[in-house]
Amino acid sequence: MKMRIYWIAAVLLLSMNSAHAELIVKKQAFTMADYVTVGGETIPEVTVGWEAYGELNETKDNVILITHFFSGNSHAAGKYAETDPLPGYWDSIIGPGKAIDTNKYYVVSSDTLVNAFPGDPNVITTGPKSINPATGKPYGLDFPVVTIRDFVNVQKALLESLGIEKLHAVVGASMGSLQAIEWAAAYPDSVERMVSVIGTGAMDAWTIMALEHWARPIKADPNWNQGDYYSGEAPLTGVTSTLAMITQQAMHPTIMNMQAPKQDVLPDAGLDSVMTDLPAVSYLFGAAAGRAPLADANHLLYLVRANQLFVAGHDESLAKGLSNITAKTLFLPATNDLLLQPYLAKQTVAILEEQGKAPQYEEIQGIWGHLDGIFSIPTKAETLKAFIESD
Amino acid sequence: MKMRIYWIAAVLLLSMNSAHAELIVKKQAFTMADYVTVGGETIPEVTVGWEAYGELNETKDNVILITHFFSGNSHAAGKYAETDPLPGYWDSIIGPGKAIDTNKYYVVSSDTLVNAFPGDPNVITTGPKSINPATGKPYGLDFPVVTIRDFVNVQKALLESLGIEKLHAVVGASMGSLQAIEWAAAYPDSVERMVSVIGTGAMDAWTIMALEHWARPIKADPNWNQGDYYSGEAPLTGVTSTLAMITQQAMHPTIMNMQAPKQDVLPDAGLDSVMTDLPAVSYLFGAAAGRAPLADANHLLYLVRANQLFVAGHDESLAKGLSNITAKTLFLPATNDLLLQPYLAKQTVAILEEQGKAPQYEEIQGIWGHLDGIFSIPTKAETLKAFIESD
Repeated sequence: MKMRIYWIAAVLLLSMNSAHAELIVKKQAFTMADYVTVGGETIPEVTVGWEAYGELNETKDNVILITHFFSGNSHAAGKYAETDPLPGYWDSIIGPGKAIDTNKYYVVSSDTLVNAFPGDPNVITTGPKSINPATGKPYGLDFPVVTIRDFVNVQKALLESLGIEKLHAVVGASMGSLQAIEWAAAYPDSVERMVSVIGTGAMDAWTIMALEHWARPIKADPNWNQGDYYSGEAPLTGVTSTLAMITQQAMHPTIMNMQAPKQDVLPDAGLDSVMTDLPAVSYLFGAAAGRAPLADANHLLYLVRANQLFVAGHDESLAKGLSNITAKTLFLPATNDLLLQPYLAKQTVAILEEQGKAPQYEEIQGIWGHLDGIFSIPTKAETLKAFIESD
Repeated sequence: MKMRIYWIAAVLLLSMNSAHAELIVKKQAFTMADYVTVGGETIPEVTVGWEAYGELNETKDNVILITHFFSGNSHAAGKYAETDPLPGYWDSIIGPGKAIDTNKYYVVSSDTLVNAFPGDPNVITTGPKSINPATGKPYGLDFPVVTIRDFVNVQKALLESLGIEKLHAVVGASMGSLQAIEWAAAYPDSVERMVSVIGTGAMDAWTIMALEHWARPIKADPNWNQGDYYSGEAPLTGVTSTLAMITQQAMHPTIMNMQAPKQDVLPDAGLDSVMTDLPAVSYLFGAAAGRAPLADANHLLYLVRANQLFVAGHDESLAKGLSNITAKTLFLPATNDLLLQPYLAKQTVAILEEQGKAPQYEEIQGIWGHLDGIFSIPTKAETLKAFIESD
């Protein structure tokens, strides 16, 4: 019986492989000189990583840009090598014949500035951990505050270096959605379609506060040392708390309780001392501690700030900022999202509707919460494909 | 026009006052010797505060016990003096002629062990901040871990000191609900009715993790010093972060966004440095910092642990623990609660139903989130009154 199930699985896998040949991708680097931030500061040299899937056509008008989420990077689809255990995070919707069809579109995905995991060998980013050419040492807190618009501006320079002036679409989840909306608001002539997955047009007070809780454990860690720790020990305790909080808030209790150790009886260990971690806590914080060495504490603080400052269009109001948008828009929040709840996307959609535009809105159903934007996105593949391929 | 509204308001207030005369209450103290905890440790002297509203009848069978929430205390109703700006937290449902009618019932409310705010002049509690008679110094982490059952056991001793053997009802919100369910599971012969407001029959992994985030800022504060800070500076930075987190998680974005400063444009201040607090952050953390000096860091850690360990009945499973319950039960979770979401109460209710009991279940509607259990409880006054006064 077991043999038969394996056999069926093998056939299914083979047939999937023949329909959707595995993309093999490589990380590339883009460098620009003297980037001037929204805050008016100059960064002498900015380098970010990027990947591309599919082929750029001759008229260079088949480009779809993918913008990544807070703890993500530009690895949106495919594998670097066939032996990679997992493909990029949205491989379910990006590839030959998929919702974002790489047989038709040239899909570009870019690392942001101040990426959370500069220690990840597949991330290329510029931020507080980068060497300041003026001092020969890491910037630390001398790195200027950057905004979502800065992320977008660097992506625009990357695309221009490839001769690309217009996007068929820009698609992003969570912080990637902030970038996608910002693209549409800041450069309306360059964006034909915008897809916001689990996103918002602006931060509200509640989310600004939620993000602040992610910053505090780092600032409270003595090893953080006002951002000056690159020659000493990294503030891994703080970073671990931050990553644990992010993981929990990105998930719904349903999936978390399915995955984490249960506690149906009074655990003896927990009675000994308030210093003993309970099994569910060890599970969450253990995973976070494992990832912490690849993250950078200052980068996390800068990412928090970029998100906290977000209001699409950077204009005198959100409505004014959104009024610039000419792109067709699709909003896909997740019903069970506890981090960027659907009310946020609804507020943005309501403003666009008041402005006589026709935003499309559908909610993703699932048990993952915020992460339904990644793991349950296949349920919206048809909606996405129809939107991307619409006139 | 304005005058007329004032006049109507004055008449309404007068009529309310005549119907519900203001309760004037006083805090009392109960002390017991050699309390042995669930963990088998002896606390030589335990003192907790309590209040009572109404009159104990001769047969001493008209008693309703109110158990308080995480950051609360026994001041559930009335005022200490007519000049107090606000009455106790559930004054809307406890008083003469109210849902919990002090003309009929003797309502007792008790401070728990390890209360979060031992510095509050109206709180009387025993915990890590208390003097250890063996050393003449505060216990710190030498204080034994205590559980929700320990809170209940001390309340039981308090009631027995008043000659009370049976509760007409036990009613509590949030952590108070944990105590109420524990009363019904641990002492079924003593509890005739149990009301769980915004509660759960047991902690799940997700909530254990959420509580852990409240503990970490304290443990990360160098002033905490492994719980030994009573002769030095208190870890107020950590306590402030903890209280800020609790406040946010107890509220829904709807009410928080109504109360907190808005940020509809890119704020210049936030562009200067990642060290500059945004207005919404100053609002949340400023309020928390104001309350922090009355809290105790170790007490907060012990409260977190008591909640993390909770599984009603302390038996081999939640179902086994709940199987002891003979009381009539009413569950009132809040639909928009983001801290103890209704799925938790539903799970407990489902088990009771499987056991052939008839738990009553209604959801509180409101914009407060978890705090709907406090601020929107008047919408369930009739349900509550009918349940309390049922045979």
